[in-house]
Amino acid sequence: MTAMPVATPIAFTEEQLATVSYNADGLVPAIVQEHGTGQVLTLAWMNADTLRESLETGRTVFWSRSRQERWRKGDTSGDRQFIREAFFDCDGDALLFVVEQEGQGACHTGNRSCFYRPFGPD
Amino acid sequence: MTAMPVATPIAFTEEQLATVSYNADGLVPAIVQEHGTGQVLTLAWMNADTLRESLETGRTVFWSRSRQERWRKGDTSGDRQFIREAFFDCDGDALLFVVEQEGQGACHTGNRSCFYRPFGPD
Repeated sequence: MTAMPVATPIAFTEEQLATVSYNADGLVPAIVQEHGTGQVLTLAWMNADTLRESLETGRTVFWSRSRQERWRKGDTSGDRQFIREAFFDCDGDALLFVVEQEGQGACHTGNRSCFYRPFGPD
Repeated sequence: MTAMPVATPIAFTEEQLATVSYNADGLVPAIVQEHGTGQVLTLAWMNADTLRESLETGRTVFWSRSRQERWRKGDTSGDRQFIREAFFDCDGDALLFVVEQEGQGACHTGNRSCFYRPFGPD
């Protein structure tokens, strides 16, 4: 039996948050990688509010570009992501979240990772 | 002594390439992950031409948004990336390249990964 994952806030400083730069739509790409396996699960987008909420709550919260709304991973699917580590890159224009992935995975298709299709012959 | 890495083309179909969608600037984000360690090295951007060149040559080739020019990783730094696997995501709007990283790493700062700064207290 696996213990229920627990959401743990990620500490941050206002100076670190101010280092993050956003595109013209106010968004920054966020890579989500699985803790332990290192599998890259998905690439999603955050704005300043959902980045702050993600760190404060220890859950990944994104901005849906198609629906133009805040979207907390797992609220619909049940497959929550509990943040264990969070990084910002050298230029401050990309983020990396290392998460404990709940349930069957990160992808709406039912695959564990959104990157389930390799280039190559069928 | 480590054997010199060899560039190996990645097979693809035109149908797969046509699945990739680009933003208003004609770009798609490309996650680069290290083969073997699973470390996420960088997030960079490709256009249709540099994606095709990357697959055909087996080396990562990006589009520099700041310089507005094609940029083949390693041509300046010597730290080339040899592609071992390549994936496109469920929506076709993000790419993942698993690479053999040459030299000291992927980041222009000298760090192995561009994601060397964790959120948290200094």
